[in-house]
Amino acid sequence: MADLGTVAGLTTPALLVEDTLLEANLATMSAALPGDRLRPHVKAHKCTALAARQHAAGHHGFTCATVREVEGMVAAGLGDDLLLANEVLDMRRLGALVAEGARVTAAVDSSQTIAAAVDGGVREVVIDVNVGLPRCGCPPEKAGDLAASARERGLAVRGVMGYEGHLMMVTPEAERTRLTEEAMKLLLAAHAEVGGDLVSAGGTGTHAVNTWASEIQAGSYALMDTAYGSLGLPFAQALSVLGTVISVSEGWAVADVGLKSLGMDHGNPTIEGASVWYCSDEHITFAPSTPGSVHVGDRVRVLPAHVDPTVALHEAMYLASGDRVLERWPVDLRGW
Amino acid sequence: MADLGTVAGLTTPALLVEDTLLEANLATMSAALPGDRLRPHVKAHKCTALAARQHAAGHHGFTCATVREVEGMVAAGLGDDLLLANEVLDMRRLGALVAEGARVTAAVDSSQTIAAAVDGGVREVVIDVNVGLPRCGCPPEKAGDLAASARERGLAVRGVMGYEGHLMMVTPEAERTRLTEEAMKLLLAAHAEVGGDLVSAGGTGTHAVNTWASEIQAGSYALMDTAYGSLGLPFAQALSVLGTVISVSEGWAVADVGLKSLGMDHGNPTIEGASVWYCSDEHITFAPSTPGSVHVGDRVRVLPAHVDPTVALHEAMYLASGDRVLERWPVDLRGW
Repeated sequence: MADLGTVAGLTTPALLVEDTLLEANLATMSAALPGDRLRPHVKAHKCTALAARQHAAGHHGFTCATVREVEGMVAAGLGDDLLLANEVLDMRRLGALVAEGARVTAAVDSSQTIAAAVDGGVREVVIDVNVGLPRCGCPPEKAGDLAASARERGLAVRGVMGYEGHLMMVTPEAERTRLTEEAMKLLLAAHAEVGGDLVSAGGTGTHAVNTWASEIQAGSYALMDTAYGSLGLPFAQALSVLGTVISVSEGWAVADVGLKSLGMDHGNPTIEGASVWYCSDEHITFAPSTPGSVHVGDRVRVLPAHVDPTVALHEAMYLASGDRVLERWPVDLRGW
Repeated sequence: MADLGTVAGLTTPALLVEDTLLEANLATMSAALPGDRLRPHVKAHKCTALAARQHAAGHHGFTCATVREVEGMVAAGLGDDLLLANEVLDMRRLGALVAEGARVTAAVDSSQTIAAAVDGGVREVVIDVNVGLPRCGCPPEKAGDLAASARERGLAVRGVMGYEGHLMMVTPEAERTRLTEEAMKLLLAAHAEVGGDLVSAGGTGTHAVNTWASEIQAGSYALMDTAYGSLGLPFAQALSVLGTVISVSEGWAVADVGLKSLGMDHGNPTIEGASVWYCSDEHITFAPSTPGSVHVGDRVRVLPAHVDPTVALHEAMYLASGDRVLERWPVDLRGW
């Protein structure tokens, strides 16, 4: 294998993944939700090399958010059972994958998305049910009719999905559990009308408390971010954005990690031992807790607040152990 | 030329640029700041095809924020006079471009960045001066010493730069003008010590009021965003993210434009005729002003709040006139 050099030698900004922390996160989740109890969501890392590790840990079905993610997973030989947990109105690219032997199941929540599955050549669907998040999904009481309509048009209906995304960050955990139970009651009522094996729901925030779904669609647990990090979940922040300090002034310093290498929808990132002031396109301005402790040329690790859109801004992530770069993993599921 | 089809036929989400609005923006700016009075900043579009239009409009020098932007501009034949308006500690890739005949000038604000220019083979620099934005740049009173030090080490010092980024959004304009004058007095004082032809500063927000700089580094004016749109500048929002409505519920609708196709640091994007509730990874949830007016399959145009990080999330932008796609422009300056 080619020598990938050292962390110190990486061009910055660079997505850095700590191998031991990633492996611990994967092992912790596989112990909690073994095999098909977990359907890892690839949108959180957009990286087939990382998905291959999840596959090796025993999870053979995956969740995707885009057609491109489905295509990339099939191309990487990870197309055993892919759920596109999102509505798509042009499913022809998905149908082409099905025709080539991949197993692709699409979420549908309307007559139009059912028609798109039929027209595109996708043969398996789940009924997407709104369990309280104002986004996609049909009202629970309409799920049975949609399933019947899908079956009439020749589709196999594998069950239901319903994402309780509005509950991921609820604290304390007891309240998260109570609200998740309420949401899942809606999903189970829909499932009673729809039938099928799948009751697909959940995410990293509810993976331990959602005992009603047959499978959990968690993704963030592998790399983590500071938003999920605040919940006390048993996963470590394995991902950081490595930067170089490019300028030091009286009272602040600047590193080359900015809006173009960080998802900002959850707010500013974090630097240990420093107070982050603000980010601009290619800069993060921060004040070190110990004045004079940061110098031009130093490396800093910036912890993103939200992993998913952060990853989408990078071409690759670097798997590292200490200062050694073990592997370069292309972020190969970007785009649409 | 290959038929690129229609806007209605584009896979969504897609960056859409209205040709007539772009051309009007370019013409308005070229009339205000002709030729070398403008050094367009490519970080706002990261697209050499768009830069080529700016070059054709008479602007032969460009501003870049990253080494990759400089490399891409040289590769596209637009390397007449590139200013990397940012500090970089490894300039070897820049030096390689200089050795091949490109003109590359780097910003320096410390002994370390001067050493990086010497070591990397970059022969021309500007002294980056802090004019009030807490980011890069030396204190104005240190600029002369840094210039002398750079010249001692064999570098040509072309002048100064100082970005009044903290003033771009100040209203009313009279106050923006007053504060810009204060900031530019600092830069001109530094310039008196440094010498050279260049006094490089400014941006879209101060392009009309900054009469002290010899050249303005504006970028956003070409495509625009809703943040700059609020200032009453003579530029139209030429850029939108085209989406498809994928789900409609009682009270809201969802399109396939989310955090992974929108820079979110300036807040939520805008949809005309609707109230935007929130964005998630691949979704925007919004309430149409006229209930029942939005249907599954409709196309919507989402106006980003901040153009620069939005563009960085896309592989290409589509130049359109009405429903006709005129050109596909790769966003070829992404990454580092």
